[in-house]
Amino acid sequence: MDLAGRYNRGLEKLDEIHAGLGKQVMERLKEVCPDFERLTTEFAYGEIYNRPGLDLRTRQLCTVAALTVLGNGAPQLKAHINGALNLGISTQEIVEVIIQMALYGGFHCAQNALFLAAEVFQERQR
Amino acid sequence: MDLAGRYNRGLEKLDEIHAGLGKQVMERLKEVCPDFERLTTEFAYGEIYNRPGLDLRTRQLCTVAALTVLGNGAPQLKAHINGALNLGISTQEIVEVIIQMALYGGFHCAQNALFLAAEVFQERQR
Amino acid sequence: MDLAGRYNRGLEKLDEIHAGLGKQVMERLKEVCPDFERLTTEFAYGEIYNRPGLDLRTRQLCTVAALTVLGNGAPQLKAHINGALNLGISTQEIVEVIIQMALYGGFHCAQNALFLAAEVFQERQR
Amino acid sequence: MDLAGRYNRGLEKLDEIHAGLGKQVMERLKEVCPDFERLTTEFAYGEIYNRPGLDLRTRQLCTVAALTVLGNGAPQLKAHINGALNLGISTQEIVEVIIQMALYGGFHCAQNALFLAAEVFQERQR
Amino acid sequence: MDLAGRYNRGLEKLDEIHAGLGKQVMERLKEVCPDFERLTTEFAYGEIYNRPGLDLRTRQLCTVAALTVLGNGAPQLKAHINGALNLGISTQEIVEVIIQMALYGGFHCAQNALFLAAEVFQERQR
Amino acid sequence: MDLAGRYNRGLEKLDEIHAGLGKQVMERLKEVCPDFERLTTEFAYGEIYNRPGLDLRTRQLCTVAALTVLGNGAPQLKAHINGALNLGISTQEIVEVIIQMALYGGFHCAQNALFLAAEVFQERQR
Repeated sequence: MDLAGRYNRGLEKLDEIHAGLGKQVMERLKEVCPDFERLTTEFAYGEIYNRPGLDLRTRQLCTVAALTVLGNGAPQLKAHINGALNLGISTQEIVEVIIQMALYGGFHCAQNALFLAAEVFQERQR
Repeated sequence: MDLAGRYNRGLEKLDEIHAGLGKQVMERLKEVCPDFERLTTEFAYGEIYNRPGLDLRTRQLCTVAALTVLGNGAPQLKAHINGALNLGISTQEIVEVIIQMALYGGFHCAQNALFLAAEVFQERQR
Repeated sequence: MDLAGRYNRGLEKLDEIHAGLGKQVMERLKEVCPDFERLTTEFAYGEIYNRPGLDLRTRQLCTVAALTVLGNGAPQLKAHINGALNLGISTQEIVEVIIQMALYGGFHCAQNALFLAAEVFQERQR
Repeated sequence: MDLAGRYNRGLEKLDEIHAGLGKQVMERLKEVCPDFERLTTEFAYGEIYNRPGLDLRTRQLCTVAALTVLGNGAPQLKAHINGALNLGISTQEIVEVIIQMALYGGFHCAQNALFLAAEVFQERQR
Repeated sequence: MDLAGRYNRGLEKLDEIHAGLGKQVMERLKEVCPDFERLTTEFAYGEIYNRPGLDLRTRQLCTVAALTVLGNGAPQLKAHINGALNLGISTQEIVEVIIQMALYGGFHCAQNALFLAAEVFQERQR
Repeated sequence: MDLAGRYNRGLEKLDEIHAGLGKQVMERLKEVCPDFERLTTEFAYGEIYNRPGLDLRTRQLCTVAALTVLGNGAPQLKAHINGALNLGISTQEIVEVIIQMALYGGFHCAQNALFLAAEVFQERQR
């Protein structure tokens, strides 16, 4: 497969996970730095999230786990919580992952992530 | 349920995830700081890992994700990779989680975690 | 002691450290995720902060130190600076801990924490 | 050289890198904690950034790299991106450093830093 | 006070906290990078640890807290646990600080720090 | 350009930066996880390090900066210090970057990186 194929595959995966909101962020990123938009779409979504060997729902929850414990990517954590819901993961499953992360990133990281998750859940109910 | 019940429930969960090796670490921890062994068993294993709402296999992979991106808990990452295998998670699934974490914790964290995973896989083949 | 006892003990400790503001945060957390409110109260405040062997003032300053160097828990750092003042720790002692943390978390983390501390000090003077 | 000399040397270096905006931050810091303003000026700018053996432009880009991957110092990252431009570093060079940091601090850290950089670039065009 | 005075004051403070072992590390550091040995002695020990407004024992425990949650400075954590003992801080107080840090840096960081502390305690009993 | 082209371009860049030692690490990585070896070569070396707009020497020093402050990738930091020397960067420049990082990642991270750098410098003198 060539690089254009990978980019298109990335766009599809991005749409599958993040739907409209993902597209919006990537459009803003494209304005700011088109190369990084391309690299993210190609590599993160066209390559990594497209790999076989692990289902997309588990991938998504692992990303929620990672961003919770690092505690330095609030916009991305919100986006990936949204993505998890788009994939049919329940609010309860998301909350459970975040609670568990208190053991690894500290209670403050879990608390902050829970407040972000609550924002996402509310925004979708409107 | 009282605290003694929670501790025993923790010991069972610890055994389910980590089997003999987990017990070994906890015995060493008990010698060094019995209170922290109790708190870890009670809270992490008796409380958090025992919660409903998320299956234990997904919990385990989320922990592998978290310890990979933090990159500051090699002994615990090895223990949880071992635990993942004990729960019937395939080596491929573990490897996929770690590869994906390159996106969040950096390629160096994923590389280090893959070398640790390879050590664990080899130790179990003997 | 049973778990209900631990929860109540946690509420008391929470009140001792954080007074009204702590209660407010925990009420919001309860709405968002009642289980995590319970776990935090029980474990962090009912268990850890209640342990003998170290006075509460030193515990509080160590928490200020930890949240300063991690630099990923601004709301919690503000809450714990407030808590430190509630326990009778002087503004000077808090400032000294934060300055010292420049050595471990970087000058930017100390600077950010000092600005947060200044906000807390001002809010209390009103 | 005595300490007063170092402080003055720091003020000059601060002005060379950060110009008016740097002075503004340091004035606010002086109000909040005069000792930390002095320590930062003396040590960071009077001592470290004044060292021979590495040109100031490379120093500045290394700082942008460090603050990007840590992801916990947004105000300082903005200030140092500004500083880089003040030293004649091109927007392209700054963007390249940030993109590269996706490999070490994660894609989310690079994305956040690119959005901060875009803010800085726009503010200066006004 | 001039810089030479600050360096000497740093050497004294270093000796007060770390005694013989600290000197040994600084001698090795001097061979590797004499400037960084000087900067550390002058700034960290001659300036920060010499500041009034907070007693040295509390400073030392805050450093143990910081290095525990960061989890990326094992040699320095061992050195500062040693330093805490040199200042008359009890093993119990050190252990309590580390246990508490499980709440902020994760259980794995506290566990690793407890094993390091146990090594230090044993080395001193010989 | 297709993906095979990118992989080969990555191998060349890898060789330019890391020479024989880099190849050795990648061979070990290939045994452990051939996909991650390919992804690293393709993306990190074939894509990012091959980008125009910033010279390779500055890129290399920025990586040394990043790995120093994160403090969780000792093998990679050693490899990139080696790579910096391969590109003709002087030991003094490397040491200056590391010293400066004390301001952002803490003195302990700078100290650990200096000891690693000294190891690399010595290994090359043999």
